[in-house]
Amino acid sequence: MNLIQHADSPRYIQLNALDNVVVVVNDQGVPAGTQFDNGLVTLDNVPQSHKVNLVDIAEGEPVIRYGHTIGYALQAIPRGSWVREDQLRMPTAPPLDSLPLSTDVPEKAEPLEGFTFEGYRNADGTVGTRNILGITTTVQCVTGVLDHAVKRIRDELLPKYPNVDDVVALTHSYGCGVAITAKDAYIPIRTVRNLARNPNLGGEALVISLGCEKLQPGQVMHENDSSVDLDDPWLYRLQDSSHGFVEMIEQIMDMAETRLKKLDQRRRETVPASELILGMQCGGSDAFSGITANPALGYASDLLLRAGATVMFSEVTEVRDAIYLLTSRAETIEVAQELVREMDWYDRYLAKGEADRSANTTPGNKKGGLSNIVEKSLGSIVKSGRSAINGVLGPGERFTRKGLIFCATPASDFVCGTLQLAAGMNLHVFTTGRGTPYGLAMAPVVKVSTRTELSQRWPDLIDIDAGRIATGRASIEDLGWELFHYYLDVASGKKKTCAEALRLHNDITLFNPAPIT
Amino acid sequence: MNLIQHADSPRYIQLNALDNVVVVVNDQGVPAGTQFDNGLVTLDNVPQSHKVNLVDIAEGEPVIRYGHTIGYALQAIPRGSWVREDQLRMPTAPPLDSLPLSTDVPEKAEPLEGFTFEGYRNADGTVGTRNILGITTTVQCVTGVLDHAVKRIRDELLPKYPNVDDVVALTHSYGCGVAITAKDAYIPIRTVRNLARNPNLGGEALVISLGCEKLQPGQVMHENDSSVDLDDPWLYRLQDSSHGFVEMIEQIMDMAETRLKKLDQRRRETVPASELILGMQCGGSDAFSGITANPALGYASDLLLRAGATVMFSEVTEVRDAIYLLTSRAETIEVAQELVREMDWYDRYLAKGEADRSANTTPGNKKGGLSNIVEKSLGSIVKSGRSAINGVLGPGERFTRKGLIFCATPASDFVCGTLQLAAGMNLHVFTTGRGTPYGLAMAPVVKVSTRTELSQRWPDLIDIDAGRIATGRASIEDLGWELFHYYLDVASGKKKTCAEALRLHNDITLFNPAPIT
Repeated sequence: MNLIQHADSPRYIQLNALDNVVVVVNDQGVPAGTQFDNGLVTLDNVPQSHKVNLVDIAEGEPVIRYGHTIGYALQAIPRGSWVREDQLRMPTAPPLDSLPLSTDVPEKAEPLEGFTFEGYRNADGTVGTRNILGITTTVQCVTGVLDHAVKRIRDELLPKYPNVDDVVALTHSYGCGVAITAKDAYIPIRTVRNLARNPNLGGEALVISLGCEKLQPGQVMHENDSSVDLDDPWLYRLQDSSHGFVEMIEQIMDMAETRLKKLDQRRRETVPASELILGMQCGGSDAFSGITANPALGYASDLLLRAGATVMFSEVTEVRDAIYLLTSRAETIEVAQELVREMDWYDRYLAKGEADRSANTTPGNKKGGLSNIVEKSLGSIVKSGRSAINGVLGPGERFTRKGLIFCATPASDFVCGTLQLAAGMNLHVFTTGRGTPYGLAMAPVVKVSTRTELSQRWPDLIDIDAGRIATGRASIEDLGWELFHYYLDVASGKKKTCAEALRLHNDITLFNPAPIT
Repeated sequence: MNLIQHADSPRYIQLNALDNVVVVVNDQGVPAGTQFDNGLVTLDNVPQSHKVNLVDIAEGEPVIRYGHTIGYALQAIPRGSWVREDQLRMPTAPPLDSLPLSTDVPEKAEPLEGFTFEGYRNADGTVGTRNILGITTTVQCVTGVLDHAVKRIRDELLPKYPNVDDVVALTHSYGCGVAITAKDAYIPIRTVRNLARNPNLGGEALVISLGCEKLQPGQVMHENDSSVDLDDPWLYRLQDSSHGFVEMIEQIMDMAETRLKKLDQRRRETVPASELILGMQCGGSDAFSGITANPALGYASDLLLRAGATVMFSEVTEVRDAIYLLTSRAETIEVAQELVREMDWYDRYLAKGEADRSANTTPGNKKGGLSNIVEKSLGSIVKSGRSAINGVLGPGERFTRKGLIFCATPASDFVCGTLQLAAGMNLHVFTTGRGTPYGLAMAPVVKVSTRTELSQRWPDLIDIDAGRIATGRASIEDLGWELFHYYLDVASGKKKTCAEALRLHNDITLFNPAPIT
């Protein structure tokens, strides 16, 4: 990285020697007429994290960032201009039938031995980073009653069981009024099922059903067997209540206490770092995301993988335009083909709704200097580091192997987080440029800011400041190691994240590509 | 209605003289070999609310209920059989190109004068039945922070403003990570906008935005103008916070208190019953829904319409198979054509997801004796009474006129309730056979049971027992008038519904037929 470091002088970052545009670092941007150390003079006022071109770019010529083409100039762009979305024609998405498959697989790096954390070992072999009572639901009908029950469990029961961290209701909008046999209904159904098996819930959850809904408890409790024992001690159907609301609350409280007693017996034990299942995500991205926070996550990801852990990255529309960089890194041709299949599924899903991947970028992204989804994607996939990609999960699928996994989810923060929880994530990391108070009830969320200014303004919401990389106060390697250790400390319960301390939780949001009725 | 009334003798209900099947009334059903007073002997054990045939039905002959064909016999069904789904071939849906349009418009009944309720008059001319502080959101990112703020507003501020009934956060899963310019995105967008204008929120709500999201505050605050004054006193963007979470909470609390002061000045005043905007819905239906609760709602609806009120019915997939009974009742050919357009839109929406209207019925419906969507539809549309249909609203649209309105929504309880709130509903009525603790935070929900047994088991959840119609203890007319008066009492705040007393609230659930990204 070519970094110009004087604290108050005009500064930019060039990421790749091939790049003909660079990104302005200064908090207030730079006015027109600013001269950088290398002689480049700006022709426009350029805001922070926006792009300036190092050389004249003729009409039709590529604009290059991260060493890749992010667009073609619609007109001549003289050296020193503020390079913006409206001056660029977006490249077409890479065709899926001619991608390099497993052509450039990174070699396995030396294992990192001896790293551990303190976790809760579950009966199914997974490890929780928290010890949470989960209460899942088959249908939204039960939400009102369950909200009351959870409040009372938290107030009246939880204090009696100090080894249990929390009680969480897995409420959602699926379960009835949906086309449950439609072709794509398997996605929300397996998501609900796998959420309940998250390692942080001890690998199983209580189930609250209404009784008459379409999604029946058996489908939530078992993978290939929709039958269910109605006397199952972890299941309660509200329609079985003989005395209305009062009995419903009593029954749920009783079930909860039985489960709390069991959970309270558990103790943390030392487990290898390989038991970590980290989900990575970015939201409210800016042009620094791909320079500071995401590369640091990528470095930490490579460390975790060397320690044998599972690391998931996601967000189909944010990898689609850079997919050729992922298929080539796939460990096997089969893994590469699974990546292609997920891209193809999503292309067709968007086309059916008369949208395409360009629907991804937000006003905030653009204000943050990201011209289009190609530029956003190149900055997003940096999170995945430099390791081989070992596996692919469809939306709502649960992990089956360790290593670097592409978990194919929409980029929506809440949907991606929900699907990564269903995949089995026991720790989450979230990078943000524009800033968000994002949090999840079922897993600790480490929030990393792309810029120092944000972490200074929001000290109670941002856990790690990756903006230090832009200002030269830390290297990507420094921050990668810092994150690696921080992950292990949070996983062990030695540190609480900002979102945990404040109890900031976004709702579970299912991905249901099938119709509702 | 042909009603056999002895309390302990075998009883059935025949709704229409043309019907060749009747419905068993007895709580425990009737065993095989049971003889009814008219000599009919059952060949099978028949559960309560399930069907028995009065005459032999030959293979291919129609099975008739409500005077209409609900299916064709797949085999000969001897007199006295338990007539079930697996013996019936479902009729095809009525083709949309040959429906009777406005051919049988009911005459306007004599106006009902002098009925009033005590309501809150809003600046936009609407009337609230409650005085609620609403806080809406542009995006789910703000949910975690807003949940904290609302808890503090309820605990610390609300007690100081005794004329304000409640504070409600309009949180939802839309706003970002969605294809905001996709063809069908107008549906969730106008829903979010119109929810905030609900009469029970005083006609306007505070708006909490993140800042970088796709759905911008202007689109939530104005119909045809997405611009917004960032100094608007009813708007706060979390990304404007200079001091993290603490400042966010302070800012929201300050805004809320300003608004609470204004709301607290309001007093109920006597307004004509014509200011009522009733939304009707059924959920967890059984074969009694169309015999007891829904006809009573229909009777009350006709009374309300005579008093000049607005009454909405909904649930496209539950009117689709009986649409010919509605298009003929449309006040004008234009209204009939709008009905057809909404049916056609939904047919295509379901087809795109490789589903059809048969996806509607639930295991609970079937257990409750409803063989298929045709039978369910005939029982569902009874809610709409016998009046002319005066208008049609698309999903998320706000009401523009009084009268009987078909509000085209999915049948999902939460989605339908949400869209009726967006349409401007200030009072909700919900009929249920199987039983549900359903409730809404933004409007009182009157829950009506189709069977007495349910209301006896759930006295704290069911407001009105319509099962009395099946057992002969009340007529449809009796219950219609009872409901009419009950609506006015609840609207006036003189009575609280069960869901209100217990504070049972389902979540707002948007209808987003467009893709997420």
